Amino acid sequence: MPTASNALPGSTGDAIRADVAVIGAGVVGHGIAWEIQRSGRSVVLIDDAPGAGASWAAAGMLAPVSELHYQEEDLLDLMTEASSRWPGFAAGVATAAGAGTGYLTTPTLAVGIDAADRRALMDLRAVQQANGLEVQPLTVREARGREPLLSPAISCALDTPADHQVDPRRLIASLRLALGGAARETPELAVAGAGDGYAVPERAAGLLWEGGAVAGVRLAGGGTVVAGETVVANGLHAGSLDGLPDGLELPLRPVHGDILRLSVPQHLRPLVTATVRGLVHGIPVYIVPRQDGTVVIGASQREDALSDAVSAGSVYQLLRDAQALVPAVAELELLECTARARPGTPDNAPLLGRVAVSPGSRDPGDGHVPGLIIATGFFRHGVLLTPAAAAICTALLDGAADPRWAPFSPDRFSRPAAAVPSPHMKETA
Amino acid sequence: MPTASNALPGSTGDAIRADVAVIGAGVVGHGIAWEIQRSGRSVVLIDDAPGAGASWAAAGMLAPVSELHYQEEDLLDLMTEASSRWPGFAAGVATAAGAGTGYLTTPTLAVGIDAADRRALMDLRAVQQANGLEVQPLTVREARGREPLLSPAISCALDTPADHQVDPRRLIASLRLALGGAARETPELAVAGAGDGYAVPERAAGLLWEGGAVAGVRLAGGGTVVAGETVVANGLHAGSLDGLPDGLELPLRPVHGDILRLSVPQHLRPLVTATVRGLVHGIPVYIVPRQDGTVVIGASQREDALSDAVSAGSVYQLLRDAQALVPAVAELELLECTARARPGTPDNAPLLGRVAVSPGSRDPGDGHVPGLIIATGFFRHGVLLTPAAAAICTALLDGAADPRWAPFSPDRFSRPAAAVPSPHMKETA
Repeated sequence: MPTASNALPGSTGDAIRADVAVIGAGVVGHGIAWEIQRSGRSVVLIDDAPGAGASWAAAGMLAPVSELHYQEEDLLDLMTEASSRWPGFAAGVATAAGAGTGYLTTPTLAVGIDAADRRALMDLRAVQQANGLEVQPLTVREARGREPLLSPAISCALDTPADHQVDPRRLIASLRLALGGAARETPELAVAGAGDGYAVPERAAGLLWEGGAVAGVRLAGGGTVVAGETVVANGLHAGSLDGLPDGLELPLRPVHGDILRLSVPQHLRPLVTATVRGLVHGIPVYIVPRQDGTVVIGASQREDALSDAVSAGSVYQLLRDAQALVPAVAELELLECTARARPGTPDNAPLLGRVAVSPGSRDPGDGHVPGLIIATGFFRHGVLLTPAAAAICTALLDGAADPRWAPFSPDRFSRPAAAVPSPHMKETA
Repeated sequence: MPTASNALPGSTGDAIRADVAVIGAGVVGHGIAWEIQRSGRSVVLIDDAPGAGASWAAAGMLAPVSELHYQEEDLLDLMTEASSRWPGFAAGVATAAGAGTGYLTTPTLAVGIDAADRRALMDLRAVQQANGLEVQPLTVREARGREPLLSPAISCALDTPADHQVDPRRLIASLRLALGGAARETPELAVAGAGDGYAVPERAAGLLWEGGAVAGVRLAGGGTVVAGETVVANGLHAGSLDGLPDGLELPLRPVHGDILRLSVPQHLRPLVTATVRGLVHGIPVYIVPRQDGTVVIGASQREDALSDAVSAGSVYQLLRDAQALVPAVAELELLECTARARPGTPDNAPLLGRVAVSPGSRDPGDGHVPGLIIATGFFRHGVLLTPAAAAICTALLDGAADPRWAPFSPDRFSRPAAAVPSPHMKETA
């Protein structure tokens, strides 16, 4: 139940009004907003720092094959679905924006350094093959024929042709052009009071309620957005929104990652043509080549207290392990060290869908909270999963829920409301 | 001989006029300008990017003992002279500015990792002792008693109590306050047309001549500074000034250095209390602790083509070797990676003093070019040598040349003018 402060005010004369409000302007929020706008709905995207969260650090690997982990087959289905949507999604954004996204279908090479790395990658290949995924072992000579700067000391290399890449910063820039362009060209899609007809550069403080339905967003600056549907896509911050449905648990935790951007001197270009994903004495590292002559090296996974601070130990380890794969990394120019937190969940899968009226009741007859969709907890997979999340959210607006995605229900970690003390009930008592 | 374009224009009505013009606003140029201003002369400091060159990267170690190299005893005299001036210089700046410089007399600890490092440090100690410098071996237990976060795997530690530090960025900020404050308080020191009464934020293009004397500076923007004396203190750029005396060779070369700034988490403070200078399998690295809870780790020496670009290989090596000395470096936050070029000379000693009318003639009866002092080529020692350079330049303005500093004559690499083709003579022919 909402508290009084979250009730839709009687007079909302100054409110921004849109068909749909999307909270959170990372890659996922941008992709969802664009797909919703394409479905003919007016949309606002609410964020005081668009693209500055986990998306700012993301390498943009689109790697359903390499990212397969044991016993995460549900997630594999979602990743495969997303992967199949990427060509059309990227082409659509590029056409609408008149600008590219850095989407490249160059392959990925999985590389190990020692015998244990080789065994781990071959074991994973067995799982990948069992799931119908193509992973082809190469000899070291074949691998170095393709990528001459690979170290001769590698223990194995596997070609993974289905794992691709996009440039998340370019993707967001193009999605912004596409969103603004559509609002400019189609008056009924333009939202009055929003920048470029769609952008609300403010922090979302909480959800607004009217009756038993979510009716929009309360902004930290005091304003309101009135919307028929609200999508919560602000990553780690989703759990701290005010006015979430009672009993809904969003168990998000920050998993920090450090990532490096480097420039390849002319005489070493291209450093590599494929994305190189290494296992270096058991530690993962990747090198993603961009079209502009830079490479991205990542990424650590830390659950320590450094927050968005860059870890000296992680930078050291990334440079050490990347040099083990490609020794010429030592000769690159270090442009940028960035750290951000990814929104992790207990099962490494997203929180995606509508919320039951009694979260956690597991009663199939239970209806959903009207006006609310959750789309967060994408952890390491936010960029890859964006086209799928966008399609799923848009289908939910149309009333079409695909049972394949039921495992990602955002209230799967919630207990029945009666079993937990409700902070809102306490506040209103 | 000056060319026509370097001749003092007949009408210099719009010129900035000062007793002394200093070209180059690094630590050295600032220090010289301040000392000259203190001597009662009006001064301008010409630079379009004050403090942004080698000074921006400098760690600020004041280490005459640790920086002693074999067969550089002349330089040792100058470093010792500078070191003895530092307490008074730092106190004077701080008093005049009403702001500190980060000058600290905490000791330096020289630390080796393997047996060869130990031998190298003990050999250097013999040279240091032969020159009357105090370097005291400690047991590893004693060293770790003082610095508990030192690695237990070090092979030796030597206490060097006379090697201190300053914060170059704070020093420049305070020197700017001091220069501006004096110009504000003493009208005859304020230069009309200069910012804060002393700053000319433009690039110097060349020297102006009148008769056989340097008469000021031509600015890249077209303006002029007319000054009775000009000090050339713009580091690597000194050699490319237009209108240098015919035959004067300033053989400066860029020696790039990468340096890191890191923040120490509260629970690890202080990481170290002394400056730690390590020799790690023969490679030098240092860790300089600042009062604000940060540390500086440096510095590579590269003569490659990366210019002010940060070398990934150097960052890796600095973090690797700093961790060998103090493993907890891995837990620090990496704030900044910076690279700059130091102005190296063939004998690693500065180019400091007046220039003979016939550079390289070695004729003791030869006079000096009036109105011109050179102060560049400080290589790794710019910050340490600043108070000495400032005192030497000011003494030269007073007509007092100390024969101890004759070895640093800026024309010591020049050949007699008749033996070299003069570009100026060609131009005017």
